[in-house]
Order: sequence, then C-alpha cells, then structure tokens
Amino acid sequence: MSIARRGVMLVIASPSGAGKTSISRAVMATDPDIELSVSVTTRPKRPSEVDGVHYHFISVKEFERMRADGELLEWAQVHDNLYATPRARVEQTLAGGRDILFDIDYQGTLQLYEKCRPDMVTVFILPPSIKELRARLERRAEDGPDTIRRRLKNARIEMEHWQEYDHVIINEDLERSVEKVRSILSAARSTGRRLTQMQSFVRDLQNQIDSL
Amino acid sequence: MSIARRGVMLVIASPSGAGKTSISRAVMATDPDIELSVSVTTRPKRPSEVDGVHYHFISVKEFERMRADGELLEWAQVHDNLYATPRARVEQTLAGGRDILFDIDYQGTLQLYEKCRPDMVTVFILPPSIKELRARLERRAEDGPDTIRRRLKNARIEMEHWQEYDHVIINEDLERSVEKVRSILSAARSTGRRLTQMQSFVRDLQNQIDSL
Repeated sequence: MSIARRGVMLVIASPSGAGKTSISRAVMATDPDIELSVSVTTRPKRPSEVDGVHYHFISVKEFERMRADGELLEWAQVHDNLYATPRARVEQTLAGGRDILFDIDYQGTLQLYEKCRPDMVTVFILPPSIKELRARLERRAEDGPDTIRRRLKNARIEMEHWQEYDHVIINEDLERSVEKVRSILSAARSTGRRLTQMQSFVRDLQNQIDSL
Repeated sequence: MSIARRGVMLVIASPSGAGKTSISRAVMATDPDIELSVSVTTRPKRPSEVDGVHYHFISVKEFERMRADGELLEWAQVHDNLYATPRARVEQTLAGGRDILFDIDYQGTLQLYEKCRPDMVTVFILPPSIKELRARLERRAEDGPDTIRRRLKNARIEMEHWQEYDHVIINEDLERSVEKVRSILSAARSTGRRLTQMQSFVRDLQNQIDSL
C-alpha cells in the first residue's frame, strides 16, 4: 500500500572535494523516485552539454523576465553568468509525489529556505580531514596548485555554514555516507505532513470501526 | 570516525494491534545504541517481571515525591495504578550518546513534547485496514470479544492523533516498517544540532586550512 505524498526537496551541499557529487550520483542511481534539479543558465552551452539535461540554456532577457516575475526560487551570478532554479518545474515535481535533489551552495540553500522551507531537507557533507580533502582535489588532476589553494580557501568559508543544515555527514566512507543520505530521504518521505492522503485514510479506518 | 552526539528519544506509538511492539523489538534487537525506556510504576510486580527490567516498582509515596520534585517527564494513571518516565535516567542516557525508545500513547507523547521536544523524534504506526487490525487482535487469542471491541474503540480515539507525530507509517509489511523506523532513527542521529562536537571538528578543519 502506498499513500500519496508530496515530494521532498533534498539539498546536498559541501565544500568542493568533500564528495557531494559522488554521493548524489549514488543516491540517484538506485532510487527511481528522485530526480536532479535542472537549473537555467545564461552561459553558452558547451559541446558536451545537452539542453534540458545539464541546464536549460536561456537568454539574459528571458532570465531577467523570469526573475522579475518571481519564477525563480534561487539565483546566483558566477563570473558573468547567471544561474537559477525555476519554480514551476519544482512545484510540479513535488505535487506529483517525486523528490528533487539540489546540488547547491549555502547561498542557494539560504534562498531556498526563504521560499520552500517546509519542503526541504538539507544535508551538509564534510571531509574527514583537510589532508583527505586536498588529496581528493589533487586526484582530480584537472586543477593546478593555485586553483586547489583557492578551492581550499572557499571550502573554509563554505564550512562555516554547517549549522544552517538539518543533517551533517562526515564523509569518510562513501558507501556509509550514501546509506545515511538514503536514510534521511526515507525518513523525510514518511513525514506526516507530507502524506497528503493520510487524513482521508485515517477517516476511512475510523469509519470501518464505526460500522463494525 | 565517529563524532560525539546527544542521543535521540524515539517515540513509537500506535493503536493496540497495529504492530508497535513487533517493530520496536526488531529495531532494538539489531541496534546496540538504543535501549528501551523503563517506567516506574506503583502496581505490584507480577511473578514474570523483573524489577528494573520491565518496570522500576516503587511505592505510591515515592511516586508522589518524584512527581512533586519534578523528576517525572510524563505520568499516567491506569485503573488504580500510576506509571511514569523518570527524568534522570533519560538525561543520563542522552548525554552519553545513546538513544531511548519509548512505547507510549498520545497522552504520554504530548507530555514529553512539553519537556523534551528538541530531543524527540516520534513515529505513529497505523494498520493497513481495520480488518487486518481486528485479525491481529483476535490472533493474540488472549482477549475475549468484549475486550477486542473495547480495543477497537480505543484505537479509533488514538488514531485521531496521527498529526501530532513527526512520521507516520502504515504497517502493511513488518520488515518494511522496521526498515522505515531504522531510517528515521539513522536520520535523527545525523541531525546537526545533536552532533555535540561538530563545532570543534569544523574549527579544527579550518585551522588545518589556515596552516597550509
């Protein structure tokens, strides 16, 4: 028996290199009821990207119209480009009883809190040590020492915000961290206020007793 | 790596026969970090019971002293007997990073909310149907038809209170219900504000970055 429910907005945030992306991928890979939030962006599409999968690529003019019309749940400017989460798709997904995973930083999280707190469950991932964080950043091999140093400085700032999240996981072992996120999602799904048909289900049980 | 945490008060409530006891036992059996709350009572010890295991058996005078001194988190009178949850043991267990499972009704839950809300996670178990609930009550075979009818009427009242609980589970399949409760407990354990040493852990990570 499954009772209709409103979906969960699952936010996973972490300093760069702490394992957020690996954890998110593993959760998505084994759970058919959650999908990744697709942002809109004004930056040009790269050859490897697919419109509607990696981002919805839109014009600056369209972005500004959406922002002015209150259609964006959160937005950010990174270098010269604009990024945002459009409201309509999120609302439609939640109402349909499916969950959405957000891979955003603390600034995005704080913006979402303002508009969607009751729908959100947030998780902050920390590395077990800076030695380990640095090793992970170096293993990526895509960044030079300057970039790694900058990422570590950013990590320092991002970490400052752990208390703004519902849950905190120290990612020492990927498998265990994924298991913890799965538990957090499972628990959120059984939250009473999300079970949209529970009221009528209980009334029906009570009527069954009355008619005995 | 495990970081010190404050324990969770896990409350499992349900109408009689919905499966609360089976679920609680299964959770306790596989998890070394949670223990059952042991109530004090003024009722006489039965031959099958062990003092300190099933209940702490105390006198009416001692009960009233504890109540007057604010040592009880919740209490109830059932027929002529008094039952209560003493505060000291709960506080000690939580401070030691262990969880406590409470098998209480909605009146006990409401009393605990008044004093311990930040420490609590509450779960309400419902039967999939009244036919199934009745069958379970009849299978117990210990009660006559009158008692079963009374239990069903009580179930009707208890059900009214599902919205006062954090989580609601329809117990159709014991295994799956146990899994859901385990997830709820696991999620509660990673709640940021329960992780008592997280502040110093994060400060330590930041210091590691500063000293690079």
